Amino acid sequence: MAVILQVDFPYAGPFDQRMTEQLSALAASINDEPGMVWKVWTVNEQTQEAGGVYLFDHQANAEAYLAMHTARLQQMGVQGITGKVFHINEALTAINHGPVKPA
Amino acid sequence: MAVILQVDFPYAGPFDQRMTEQLSALAASINDEPGMVWKVWTVNEQTQEAGGVYLFDHQANAEAYLAMHTARLQQMGVQGITGKVFHINEALTAINHGPVKPA
Repeated sequence: MAVILQVDFPYAGPFDQRMTEQLSALAASINDEPGMVWKVWTVNEQTQEAGGVYLFDHQANAEAYLAMHTARLQQMGVQGITGKVFHINEALTAINHGPVKPA
Repeated sequence: MAVILQVDFPYAGPFDQRMTEQLSALAASINDEPGMVWKVWTVNEQTQEAGGVYLFDHQANAEAYLAMHTARLQQMGVQGITGKVFHINEALTAINHGPVKPA
């Protein structure tokens, strides 16, 4: 059963094109994480936050990724990380065209 | 420019089929909200939380929806609502197959 992982944390940049350049290799590696279906990269320069919304195939894979990703962020000096795994109400999501089909 | 809206709050049920039955009419109405592209309905019975991840076409529409939805939840007695609007790094999101194309 697919799950949503929400992650956000304080983030002071880089933004825009420099963010893309700095993190493209990391993004490519995320495609190899077990059970990762998609990620939307989120960023808010005004509130100085960034993160991501992910679809994973199973809760166990999302939780394993969250543990790894949290440790990686902490090694980069990031604090105040919020990470939440949610089940999906698939019937309600279907009404609102939510893109939660497996890859 | 499309944005992501993340909302979550304390939620004690109903879950599963009863949640679907109770909220299907609300879900249908959300399709009529200005600029709403999709919503994934999120729920976690273990942590007693629920919410949603939305794609909106523009930041102003996401912020207007968040203000309305927060007021609606508060009228239902919900407290501790977290609502965040994020821009999307589209280049990184494309690498990870994120479903952020306009409807």
